[in-house]
Amino acid sequence: MHGLKRERGILFVISGPSGVGKNSVLTQLLKEVPGLCYSVSATTRQARKGEVDGVNYFFMTREQFLEKVETGDFLEHEEYVGNLYGTPRGYVEKELSEGCDIAMDIECRGAAQIKRMMPEAVLIFLTPPSMEELKARLLARSTDSQEAIEKRVKKAEVEMGEIYTYDYYVMNDDLRTAVEDIKKIIGAERLKVSRLKRPSVTK
Amino acid sequence: MHGLKRERGILFVISGPSGVGKNSVLTQLLKEVPGLCYSVSATTRQARKGEVDGVNYFFMTREQFLEKVETGDFLEHEEYVGNLYGTPRGYVEKELSEGCDIAMDIECRGAAQIKRMMPEAVLIFLTPPSMEELKARLLARSTDSQEAIEKRVKKAEVEMGEIYTYDYYVMNDDLRTAVEDIKKIIGAERLKVSRLKRPSVTK
Repeated sequence: MHGLKRERGILFVISGPSGVGKNSVLTQLLKEVPGLCYSVSATTRQARKGEVDGVNYFFMTREQFLEKVETGDFLEHEEYVGNLYGTPRGYVEKELSEGCDIAMDIECRGAAQIKRMMPEAVLIFLTPPSMEELKARLLARSTDSQEAIEKRVKKAEVEMGEIYTYDYYVMNDDLRTAVEDIKKIIGAERLKVSRLKRPSVTK
Repeated sequence: MHGLKRERGILFVISGPSGVGKNSVLTQLLKEVPGLCYSVSATTRQARKGEVDGVNYFFMTREQFLEKVETGDFLEHEEYVGNLYGTPRGYVEKELSEGCDIAMDIECRGAAQIKRMMPEAVLIFLTPPSMEELKARLLARSTDSQEAIEKRVKKAEVEMGEIYTYDYYVMNDDLRTAVEDIKKIIGAERLKVSRLKRPSVTK
């Protein structure tokens, strides 16, 4: 029916244990799903050659970043190798209110933070076909020591237990199948009546 | 991951105003979606030649039917041209507990009854592209009087207001698109973490 319009965009958060292939899945989704936007993160690290502020990242000083943490302007944030990274709440809210759907990939801890800040976000948990397979993937792509890899596998095992706090689970055995599954989730979430703008009641 | 299993099947209820094309959509879905079963209704009408009890319908006497109404053994029921029709709760529960997903098409009143009896059922509201189009469809397929058709259009207008009690809405402008949209909904619902069997906690 004409007149059936969504209230606002949807935030899709793709997470799961380290090594499961979150970024490959997200990259493919952004290519294939019309109307799906990428969320630009904020960071305190130096811009690399060719990186544009507001496109690749919002670049800021550590002081600016920490001030925004204080004022609750990050949906989540974390420190990695001495630099701070975060998802700016204001940017995400603006995109959503303009009706854009946003997809992002993020570590489990960040996903949990986002769900607390924005319960209407749709959390998708990518699972490996098995822990053996996940370990093999971590080994294949890592230049880390055997010990460091074992540590990441242990962490992944703990993270697997977080699946029950998510909205959907998708197995990433084959990239194509995982992408198609998430496209179904995005398609269905876009058809939810609860996301419709309700007609204003006039008496 | 191995070990991620759904607790039970899902009941998909396809409804919407009279004339919107519920049955065409359901017929196509049952052909195309693996693991989707048809729900067998009960009725007090005489079996027609070739109809098999338990396959086309569960045939029963009016007394048997009314006794089951009394004991709450119908998810919904209604009278149509002097015969009673209903969805047997026991049959549906058995199929779902065996892990089968069920799809059925039903009038809005019946859909509302089912949601009350079984809140975990997934209600999908089929909408026409416009009320003008719905009226045209009712006119095209009906042998009724102009007056009877006007009455059905009025009823459809009231039923359109019920959309906000549903889980999903799908526009049936083009049958192919509507079927694809519902396939996304079925696919996504099958990936919901809340439908997973939780591991039993042992201490």
